[in-house]
Amino acid sequence: MTYCCGILVREGLVMIADTRTNAGLDNISTFRKLHVFRRDGERVMMIATAGNLSLTQNIINHVTEGLENPDTGALERLMDAPSMFAAAELIGRAVRKVRDVQGDALESARISFDLTLLFGGQIAGGRTRLFMIYSAGNFIEATQDTPYLQIGEHKYGKPVLDRAVAYDTSVDEALKLALVSMDSTMRSNLGVGLPIDIAVLPRDQLSLEVDHRIDNADPYFHDLRDRWSVALRAAHMSIPRPPYLKKLPPPA
Amino acid sequence: MTYCCGILVREGLVMIADTRTNAGLDNISTFRKLHVFRRDGERVMMIATAGNLSLTQNIINHVTEGLENPDTGALERLMDAPSMFAAAELIGRAVRKVRDVQGDALESARISFDLTLLFGGQIAGGRTRLFMIYSAGNFIEATQDTPYLQIGEHKYGKPVLDRAVAYDTSVDEALKLALVSMDSTMRSNLGVGLPIDIAVLPRDQLSLEVDHRIDNADPYFHDLRDRWSVALRAAHMSIPRPPYLKKLPPPA
Repeated sequence: MTYCCGILVREGLVMIADTRTNAGLDNISTFRKLHVFRRDGERVMMIATAGNLSLTQNIINHVTEGLENPDTGALERLMDAPSMFAAAELIGRAVRKVRDVQGDALESARISFDLTLLFGGQIAGGRTRLFMIYSAGNFIEATQDTPYLQIGEHKYGKPVLDRAVAYDTSVDEALKLALVSMDSTMRSNLGVGLPIDIAVLPRDQLSLEVDHRIDNADPYFHDLRDRWSVALRAAHMSIPRPPYLKKLPPPA
Repeated sequence: MTYCCGILVREGLVMIADTRTNAGLDNISTFRKLHVFRRDGERVMMIATAGNLSLTQNIINHVTEGLENPDTGALERLMDAPSMFAAAELIGRAVRKVRDVQGDALESARISFDLTLLFGGQIAGGRTRLFMIYSAGNFIEATQDTPYLQIGEHKYGKPVLDRAVAYDTSVDEALKLALVSMDSTMRSNLGVGLPIDIAVLPRDQLSLEVDHRIDNADPYFHDLRDRWSVALRAAHMSIPRPPYLKKLPPPA
């Protein structure tokens, strides 16, 4: 399983991904799912991956080494894409290429062509953008109305984002909320686990502000988990007693 | 879609269920999913239902009108079951009977035999118990280690329960947490909606303390939703700024 999230606020882009992969509960490994492509001052792009690892690694390889453009015959690489939109299209083509090559064999082995990608970043001259790319290579983009996108095990960590993330949220608040969202997911799904990769790309900076791996010994993340638990407890304790209980239940 | 939850704490049993059913987003109705069977002073039993409504209503009818015992030929009704375990077995048999009658026809219409039930309550002389009954009629029971069970759209509302519900939680706190869990679910899944039915059965009371429907005009539930949002915001605001951001991002 996997949980990745991208949050695109006015100040910039936050991306977060866990690293746990599993083929059954008895076969758990650590693989990086947050891939950074950067040439500082010119472009910073990130791909977060969810789904079948053999497929997503294959896609990363294709966009790194280049795909032939069917019209021009030219080899197109992610690092040469003229815009974020063109780059998202290239990734979409890589998804379809992998499906063309492997889809039938997977289907005959009853393995579904299951993957989703987040793609975010900025190329000089263009906006900071965040896309979600589906298994057919089609994609959507985050907007000011919906400034975050999630892939993988998204439900446990969604309520806190739904309530707290807006386009005007600051980058450090967005990073904090991404970590809380990841924590909620890790507590409820053993298939999502440490270490966590985080990255922060301030708008128009064209270099990463944060590119960090949080492991089990990270004191801030430990503290955040504890504080969040305490704060949640305080939050529900502060809500008045339901009035539907007319009298106290008898002592146990 | 549906969300129902049962919480069995030392002081008693809390059950909550939404009422929204949908056959597509364009066909939404209100149906009671929390069914109460009671003879005060002798037994109070509740069934909450998730899944295909034609199947779950059918099961409720069978356990109300009675199923023939294959060994004795006697007609067995929920209201006559000698124990909560026997009652859970009876419901399991009703599930399998409905599957026997309708399973093949549903399968040929490509409709899966999809349902889950919560069954909780107390019969005089026995303990207060809470079961989850699956679509094959088999079931599990809540324990002191895991005092709550959920059916339907369970993920959005699980993190708050995971962190806050324990066997020693009071009944009114458990009811409050069930309402917060329902609120989180309703915000993220349009298929779960008001009104909400709630019931509280204090241990050994053998009559319901609460049997109430919360609708859109309910002032306490409105207040709870507002307070929870405010408290969540305060909770994440109280967590220190992540130290990974070495310097402030440039002003937008």
